[in-house]
Amino acid sequence: MKALRLNALAIALGLGALLPGTTMAASDEPISVIQPPQSINIGMAELGKKLYFDPRLSKSGFISCNSCHNLSMGGTDNLPTSIGDKWQQGPINAPTVLNSSLNVAQFWDGRAADLKAQAGGPIANPGEMAFTHTLAVDVLQSIPGYVREFKMVFGKDKIDIDEVTLAIAEFEKTLVTPNARFDQWLLGKQDALSAKEKAGYALFKDSGCIACHNGEAVGGNSFQKMGVVEPYQAKSPAEGRSAVTGKDADRFNFKVPTLRNVEMTYPYFHDGAANTLTEAVDIMGRLQLGRTFSAEENANIVAFLKTLTGDQPAFTLPILPPSTDATPRPKPF
Amino acid sequence: MKALRLNALAIALGLGALLPGTTMAASDEPISVIQPPQSINIGMAELGKKLYFDPRLSKSGFISCNSCHNLSMGGTDNLPTSIGDKWQQGPINAPTVLNSSLNVAQFWDGRAADLKAQAGGPIANPGEMAFTHTLAVDVLQSIPGYVREFKMVFGKDKIDIDEVTLAIAEFEKTLVTPNARFDQWLLGKQDALSAKEKAGYALFKDSGCIACHNGEAVGGNSFQKMGVVEPYQAKSPAEGRSAVTGKDADRFNFKVPTLRNVEMTYPYFHDGAANTLTEAVDIMGRLQLGRTFSAEENANIVAFLKTLTGDQPAFTLPILPPSTDATPRPKPF
Repeated sequence: MKALRLNALAIALGLGALLPGTTMAASDEPISVIQPPQSINIGMAELGKKLYFDPRLSKSGFISCNSCHNLSMGGTDNLPTSIGDKWQQGPINAPTVLNSSLNVAQFWDGRAADLKAQAGGPIANPGEMAFTHTLAVDVLQSIPGYVREFKMVFGKDKIDIDEVTLAIAEFEKTLVTPNARFDQWLLGKQDALSAKEKAGYALFKDSGCIACHNGEAVGGNSFQKMGVVEPYQAKSPAEGRSAVTGKDADRFNFKVPTLRNVEMTYPYFHDGAANTLTEAVDIMGRLQLGRTFSAEENANIVAFLKTLTGDQPAFTLPILPPSTDATPRPKPF
Repeated sequence: MKALRLNALAIALGLGALLPGTTMAASDEPISVIQPPQSINIGMAELGKKLYFDPRLSKSGFISCNSCHNLSMGGTDNLPTSIGDKWQQGPINAPTVLNSSLNVAQFWDGRAADLKAQAGGPIANPGEMAFTHTLAVDVLQSIPGYVREFKMVFGKDKIDIDEVTLAIAEFEKTLVTPNARFDQWLLGKQDALSAKEKAGYALFKDSGCIACHNGEAVGGNSFQKMGVVEPYQAKSPAEGRSAVTGKDADRFNFKVPTLRNVEMTYPYFHDGAANTLTEAVDIMGRLQLGRTFSAEENANIVAFLKTLTGDQPAFTLPILPPSTDATPRPKPF
């Protein structure tokens, strides 16, 4: 990682101009091949998949993790900001859950250290699933199908919220998207990318995008200011990292989003204000790099970005164990 | 079917008392083995599966067919009445989509003749998906992944709403749930049911439940008055079949719901007012048959009903083709 960051820095400083045209080994590129998950507890992940799809973790019985991080749609809801309990409007764009295990931290402001810490947030957020951890556990504990499966995975009769969030996180770790055309190219398949896509990648490096969007996830590994050269006029009141650190210097610092599967994760930015990749590339160029891309340059970068779409998670829709007479009923209205 | 109806009638008239204890061939039973789907256009069903899971068929971009007919939860939302666009409260309980191809007609009042006619309803209902057929087709037509798939299936470049609803219906025809323990018993596996479950089935026939809940779907094949012996105090304003026929005699006539997978399709009745099977069996006994089941009788019937849970649909979660720059964006707020 250190070597990679230095490489990225060198490119951001303009040294990247030396790179295009030369034949590089994949290991020399500032973007690295995304790896399929390496160490998964399958029983725990299967349990987590059920929980991920279970709207009974919400007060209404209507909203599950998958409602806003929809695995049919790039792990997002494709809305500028999400819909919460009683149709409340969320303050920020729902980031993709795909490849989120590679993030330096979770949420746009990084307030959760890892996926487990993140998973508990929306359940208890009054604007999202609007439940409490205690009530969610009470529901699960009343369902024999869950009690048995938790016992198999964790060896205990009593379910607790740590087990719930651990299982959801384990499932989320499986949501990696390998085999993008860009990865095929990194792995040596020269014709996996067109000339236009390669030109887009060269420009992505030369112009400095790569300084923040690098590594396995093409982002997700640092916090950066939104609006470096020009301030960004956000539609969201969120101020980013400063909400976590309390430091004024961190205002409008947000986690750099992954660009993996970016073709599927529209609309863009923490406020979801950019509808298209063309718009997003244009705004990023001007506000972050002080550079106005020509229409052709923009199109080339967009063509490159679309090569980052990997194999989407393929799994059987989980069937949820039914509630019993003892299960507390949801309160939708 | 005629033989079956006569048989059911005989049982309703009390002749069923002769049956229990005798060893019957499955073909003599008033409930028949549910058949896996017989004739499916796989390409059309695969397209329909995507559409079924696609929230872009709603105005908000948030509600899909699967939101209220959730295939992880018995093809229902497990809520008394459903949540529609902007969190509107629906007027009636969402019936299960499982085995709905066996219904005599669709919706509680039978206002749609078949699944295709049904599928168009919620898309354009202002209280449900709140879209229009034209706008839904415009969205699909802007997505090359869909245009190609519609062309493959229907042979035309231009998508229309008939193709959309036909494809959804074809997918729904696959949602049959064979292999319930009860079917295994019908097919000759004597120990597939416990003594208690067999006693419950005998009582279900003897007491007259079978008069309406019979056939492959254990219901779904007739309209009957809710509240025969005593009137039903509904929490829903719906008056049932009379809304379709205009006949006063049809007031409070509703389609008899299927009892297949009834353990998963709580809460019960057209107003979703019965939370548990115990409650539902008790109310049905008193209001429809003038009979108060003892606690043991009730428990036996409930035990029988739980043997009607079949194999749930098992399929890979569909990945939806992404929107393009030209795709009209949803209006969630």
